[in-house]
Order: sequence, then C-alpha cells, then structure tokens
Amino acid sequence: MKKADIGLVGLAVMGENLVMNMESKGFTVAVYNRTIEKVKRFVEGRAAGKHIIGTYSLDELVANLERPRKVMMMVKAGQAVDSLIEQLIPLLDEGDILIDGGNSHFPDTIRRTAYVESKGLLYVGCGVSGGEEGALKGPSLMPGGSVAAWPQVKPIFQAVCAKVGDEACCDWVGENGAGHFVKMVHNGIEYGDMQLICEAYQLMRDGLGMSAEEMHRVFAAWNQTELDSYLVEITRDILGYRDENGEITVDHILDTAGQKGTGKWTAIASLDEGIPLTLIGESVYSRCLSAMKDERVKASQVFPRESPVFEGDKAEFIECIRRALYASKIISYAQGYALMRSAAKTYGWNLNYGGIALMWRGGCIIRSVFLGKIKEAYDKNPALENLLLDDYFSETIRSLVPAWREVVAWAVKSGIPMPAFSSALSYFDGYTTACLPANLLQAQRDYFGAHTYERIDQPRGQFFHTNWTGHGGDTAAGTYNA
Amino acid sequence: MKKADIGLVGLAVMGENLVMNMESKGFTVAVYNRTIEKVKRFVEGRAAGKHIIGTYSLDELVANLERPRKVMMMVKAGQAVDSLIEQLIPLLDEGDILIDGGNSHFPDTIRRTAYVESKGLLYVGCGVSGGEEGALKGPSLMPGGSVAAWPQVKPIFQAVCAKVGDEACCDWVGENGAGHFVKMVHNGIEYGDMQLICEAYQLMRDGLGMSAEEMHRVFAAWNQTELDSYLVEITRDILGYRDENGEITVDHILDTAGQKGTGKWTAIASLDEGIPLTLIGESVYSRCLSAMKDERVKASQVFPRESPVFEGDKAEFIECIRRALYASKIISYAQGYALMRSAAKTYGWNLNYGGIALMWRGGCIIRSVFLGKIKEAYDKNPALENLLLDDYFSETIRSLVPAWREVVAWAVKSGIPMPAFSSALSYFDGYTTACLPANLLQAQRDYFGAHTYERIDQPRGQFFHTNWTGHGGDTAAGTYNA
Repeated sequence: MKKADIGLVGLAVMGENLVMNMESKGFTVAVYNRTIEKVKRFVEGRAAGKHIIGTYSLDELVANLERPRKVMMMVKAGQAVDSLIEQLIPLLDEGDILIDGGNSHFPDTIRRTAYVESKGLLYVGCGVSGGEEGALKGPSLMPGGSVAAWPQVKPIFQAVCAKVGDEACCDWVGENGAGHFVKMVHNGIEYGDMQLICEAYQLMRDGLGMSAEEMHRVFAAWNQTELDSYLVEITRDILGYRDENGEITVDHILDTAGQKGTGKWTAIASLDEGIPLTLIGESVYSRCLSAMKDERVKASQVFPRESPVFEGDKAEFIECIRRALYASKIISYAQGYALMRSAAKTYGWNLNYGGIALMWRGGCIIRSVFLGKIKEAYDKNPALENLLLDDYFSETIRSLVPAWREVVAWAVKSGIPMPAFSSALSYFDGYTTACLPANLLQAQRDYFGAHTYERIDQPRGQFFHTNWTGHGGDTAAGTYNA
Repeated sequence: MKKADIGLVGLAVMGENLVMNMESKGFTVAVYNRTIEKVKRFVEGRAAGKHIIGTYSLDELVANLERPRKVMMMVKAGQAVDSLIEQLIPLLDEGDILIDGGNSHFPDTIRRTAYVESKGLLYVGCGVSGGEEGALKGPSLMPGGSVAAWPQVKPIFQAVCAKVGDEACCDWVGENGAGHFVKMVHNGIEYGDMQLICEAYQLMRDGLGMSAEEMHRVFAAWNQTELDSYLVEITRDILGYRDENGEITVDHILDTAGQKGTGKWTAIASLDEGIPLTLIGESVYSRCLSAMKDERVKASQVFPRESPVFEGDKAEFIECIRRALYASKIISYAQGYALMRSAAKTYGWNLNYGGIALMWRGGCIIRSVFLGKIKEAYDKNPALENLLLDDYFSETIRSLVPAWREVVAWAVKSGIPMPAFSSALSYFDGYTTACLPANLLQAQRDYFGAHTYERIDQPRGQFFHTNWTGHGGDTAAGTYNA
C-alpha cells in the first residue's frame, strides 16, 4: 500500500467523517487515536476496504506519511492540542505540516504558529464548520497559519470542502490565527442568526398565536426568498417534525439553551477591539437568560402580562417580520465584518473579505444565498468600511426599515422580548446618526475626572478642559479611570 | 515628630488628595513618590505645616511608619503595582499591610493577595471612587483582601470616606479580589448611568427639539425626584454652563466618547459568568460607536432621516422619559447585582450586598438616593435572587412600564437610537417571560450538532436526541461546538 497523503489524529465523529470525505476524493489517509480501540473499530468498520491506514502509535502514523508530512489534529481544543504538538514535533522533519482542525481559540493558534515555526515546521489553524454531515460531505474550511503550508494542503482541502457551483468554500484566510479568528466570528454570527430566527418564531407564536404547523409553512416560504439558508431550512423542518405519537417535537423541548463558548469569545474579541457587536452580544446573553428557567418562571408570576392581541392583517405583519429579520441579519454581518476588519489591523492579517463570504457560502451552518451578495460587495470594493455603505445593502436596508420599525415597536408595546431585532435597530440608528449625545458624556467625564474633550469648532486632536465647578482646579486626570 | 499612621506611595492628584483627607481627620501620613521632586513640592506646598512626613526612599518611608505598617499604593494599575510590591516586601515585617488603592483588575488582586500573604504580609485591594474631589472630601472606599487587615485599616478608612448621615460609605467587601471586583462593577454601572442620561438628553434634544437651557431645567427638576443623584446633578450643571462668551459649552463638545477599559472589564466578566449585563454592554459599545465619528457622518448621508416631529403633550412625554430612565436604571442595577451574586459563588466571596449599596450611596460617581432603596431591599432579604423580585422594586417597575414602552416605541419609530433604554426593556421582557423561544434553538443545535435537549414533559437533567433528518445517525456531538 502506498504511503498516505495526510494523517489524522482524533477519531471522534468529526474526525472520522473528514477521513471518509478525504478518502472518497482519492486521498489515502493514515489515522490514529489515543484510545486505540477506536482505530481498530474504525478500520474494521466504516473504513474497511478503503484507502485508510490504521496506525497504533504516533510513530507509526508519521512513518506512514508522504513527505512533506501533513498531520491534521482533530482533538479537543485546549491542552490536548498543545500536548499533541509536543509529542509530534520530535517525530517530524523540517517543512512538515501540523494542522489543527479543532475549535481552538485564535490567540492559542497565534502562539502555536510561532512556536511550531520556531521548530522548523509549518502550522495551519483551520476552522472547520458544517457539523458531522458537513465534515462527511463537504465542510466549510477556513485555514490560516504558515503561508508556505498553503500550496501543500490546498489540493486536499479544496477537494474535500463544500462547493458552490464550481467554487470551493475554502481559501487561504491569512497569517497565524486568522483562520481560527474567522471561524470564531462565523460561530458568533451563527449565534446571531439562530437568535434572529428564534425572535421571529416567538413573535409569531406568542404575538400572533400561530401553531408550529403554520410557522412551518411560513419558514418554507421564507426559504424561497433572500432568507434562503441552511438555518431557515432546518427551522422549517423542525417546525414540521412530529414524533412517533404524531406530536410536534419542538413544542415539547425545554427553552433553556446551551452554549460552548465560541459566541462568548466573539463578544469578548469585539470588546477588546472596541467594535460594537451588539447583536451577537445580545444573542449570547439571550442564551444565558434562557438558562435561568426557574427564575424566569418566578418573575413571570411577579410581573404577569396579558397576552398581546394582534388586530392588523396577519399575512402583512408576517411579511414585516421577515423584513425585520432580514434587516437585522444584514446588521449582524455588517458588525461581524467590521470586527474582522479591525482585528486584521490589530494582528497584521491580510484578510480576503470576499473570500471569507465564499467560504461561508456553502458547507457551514450559516451558509446562505445572502453570503453571495456579501461576496459581491467586497469583490466590488475590498476596502469597504462597512457593509451598510455598499450600494446593494444600503438600498436593501432602506426598503426594509419601515417594516423593521413597525415590528420592533409592536413587540416593545406588546412585551415580547426582541433583544437581537431591537439591538440591531439601535445600532443602525446610532451608526447613521451624525451627532450622538456623547458630547454630554464627554462633559460629564471632564466634570468629575478632568478627562478633557474635543470641540466641534476646533481641529481634532486638541483637548480642552473646563473648570465646571469654579473650584477643583485645572489638573489633568490622575489614577481615576472611567 | 511621631511616626506615621499610614504611608502612601504615588503623589498624583488622587494620592495627594487622599493624604490631605487623612491628615485632616487626625492621621499622620508619610508620603513617597518615585519622582522625588513631587515629594518636595508637596511637603513644601499643600502639605506644609501638616502632619505629613515627606520621604525620599522606600526605606525612609517604611522607617517612618507605626507597626503594623500600612503602605497604600496609589500608582498606575498593572506592572507598576507588581514592581512596587516586589520592592516593598523585603522592607516589611510579618503582619504589615500593603494596600492597593488603584484601579487594578480583580484577577490581579486575587493573585497578589495570595502572593503577599505567602510572604507573611497582609494585602488589601481597595476600590476608590469619587474622583479627585471625592479623594479629598470623602471617597467611596471598597476594600477587600486579607480579612485580618480590616481591623487595622478600618479606623483610617472609615474616618476618611464619605458619610451618609452617620453611616460610613466604606465597609469590608470580601476576600482577595472582591473589593476591586465591586469597584469594577461600580464603574460598569457608571457607564450605564451615564449612557441612560445621554439617551434621555438625546430624546429631548433630537426628538423634542429642546435647547440645553430647557433641558437644564428638566434635569434640575428630575434631581428632586427618585433620580436624585450626583450624575443627574452634574448633568443639570453642565447643561446650564456657559463659557466666557456666554455660549453653552456642551453644545460645542465633540460627540466622541473616550473610555479607559473598566466598563469593558465588567462586560467581559459578565460574559465569563454567563450573566446578562445587556445595558452595560450596550453602554460600552455606544462609546465605541461614538468614537467612529467620520464613519457616522458618512453613513448619515447614505441614510438620511427626517427630523422626528413630536405631536403629543411635551411635558407629559418628558415625564415618560423620566420614568423610562428610572426603569432602565433599575434594570442596570439588577443586572449588576446579579453579576456580583454570580461572581461571589465563583470566587467564594461572602459579599454583603446591602453594605455595597451603602458604600456606593455616597462619595462615588454613582451616588444616589436610589441606592438607599437597594440597601433596604438587601437588608430585608440578603439572599434576594434579583432586585426585580423585591417588593419595592417590583411595584415601582410595574408603575413605570407603560411610560417606558411608550418612549422606546416612539424612539424606534422616530429613528433615535436608544440602545440602553431598549436593551433594558428587552431584558425585562425576557426575564419575565416563562417560555422563551430557546426550545427552537435547542432543536436547531440538536439538528446540526446532535447537542441534545431537555423536555418540558420530562424531569430536568435528562437529555434527548432526535434523528431529525432520518439519516445522520444517533451519535452525540463530537468536536463541533456551537
């Protein structure tokens, strides 16, 4: 048997499926897993008769690889990756490539790239999205790291990844941690997309009193519009899904959401960059709030609310909800892209924004037709400051704004929480306001902390202090921070 | 001259003022500053003829202190504190006390407490609020750290701090980093309070077309209501302040807010704790958005908006704004207290919630009459889950809700950004909703990632997986996180 084109460590469901995918595209894959029974079970089961080489030690794995060797790690993010790297480095030679396909936090990938490169090897931190099915049939892949590794891994990655038409949903993202950063933003956007769908669902369920069956039909129709996307599609399916007793399953699921932390990472990154990521922030907080089930039940008794009565044209209002959802979604992506632009400056990455939209266009959880429009916007103007300033999106938003305001105002009056819809609208209104009230805020900071301010009638960069109280002095701020 | 009761290192404006304050209360203070010219200038200037001992080395400072020695550090947060600790440890003896009165991040204080205690000394991390004037006349002090240090520093701290009636705005907060954590939350709440005032101001300025003069009178009146507070008071003064040419100063200040990061720390802490801190989060993001002045001006041209026309009763609407502000403020404090409750569990702190309200009641930037009500709520029930569940606050909120909804809905329709007002309302509506739409979200996560869900018709803690597509298998989630 010929040597393998690539080795893969970690045979959980994602790892196994990726191996099956690679093999199906004509690559020979050597596999290893710490619990070696898994290797045996895999090669005697799903992998039987395929170009898949089971190995029972890292030495054996490495010995079975073509040079330059490529080892893809599909293990739990964190300490496991570091310890695997330590074990692999002495077994590899200059120019060999270590690939981390887990959900690593980008600062770890920045650190590991530098470390592995210092040992003469190359490193790739690759975001992988699409869940188990994506891994098997074509995931979205977001590789970053040592640029010299890209020509080596490109043929494999672009063969196994998702395609949209002829185009591969995988391209080089950028230096060191760029791939994992972009994957993290993807996950944050996924939190936002899911929350938006949930708010639309809640408006229809609690505001319009609609059944799952009726909403199933609404999401089926929406999936034929600009909202055409994987998440709308599965929402349609979920709302129509009945268990063996004929009952709608989603109606029996408890409303307490879990999370694994990548949405939180995205929100923290935005705070570090100073880029408002309000919609994703609210989506993360919404999951936290949903988890406080007992407290909410108690609070709902302290603050009883009458069920809202909707008196307008239902079909018309459903269309307004669709528009509000679409507008909010555009805001979420505009915020996510603004975050990537800022991080690219901070970390010195050369990000290809259109390419990122294409990588997300297929294979991953947020895949949608809509991402094609984002790709077009950045292809037209790679230096676009904000998605909202693109002609297509500005025109679209303008057409959606009246319905969006209508829906949020109605929810506000009816007591239906719309954290993502309304934070998106606040952002839009703030971003498009030439004069915010921060002049007063600067006056306050100067009043109590002598923090100084700039003036509208003086050039930027000149700072003024007013002795507001007539006493207190003219000293600049000391250790007090606000 | 007798030895000093306490030593202080760092003679920036906050340090100097604290020394003057301590001396005025009958304590003898030894002072030192790295740039020793400052010591000379101080003892020959403001400190002349007072019980203040200038020293020109750390050795000399320590030699001038009564035992157990107390050294208060008023230096820039970060590396400077660590290096000062390193220099002081060899000069001190068992039982001596190091006090950090800067704006240190609480994880640093946790680490330093353990380190300093391991050297046989005691450590206090003390939040100090009130700006320069507070430091001089009576700051709010929030000390935490080595419990054994409290009886030693208590007489000084409770003498110099602010008072409300007979009560000192300083009490022991808790173990290791608890004092700096509570100070951090104070700063986050300060961000929120300032943003809320700014939004009320913007509604009146841009929505009702009011002048600074008119708003000056509104804030003067509000300061006679439940909103009676330092920040409302200085807002009143700022809106009435005219420069030497008779022009209203605030109208000439640029609307780009600065920040020093403590609001961001609070938001990050809330994400780490999984506690929705939506209002403070939006306040931090609003400062970021305000800083993007050029982009906003450009966007305001791409999305021109007509000035809103208000057609109702102006005085009535101003009262609605006041109520919306008050309701939102209650939410902000409810969120901040929920964060402290959660962190107390995480870090093993025994926090005295009523005491914290009292510490903030006077001396600091967020001081207000309102905090007295919070103290009462926690005195009544120290285990209160959420401020909104207290009788006084639940009754108050119920009376404010109609006006609150009115104001937010009007702003939404008029295009005036109200991120804090509306995120507070979303939180209130979410917190008081027994059934959120997270059942759908859990179904989505189970659909694409086999993350499992709980059911409303089964006990908590049992997890179910549905094979939604009929294919894809029954495996639990692998490395994919969402």
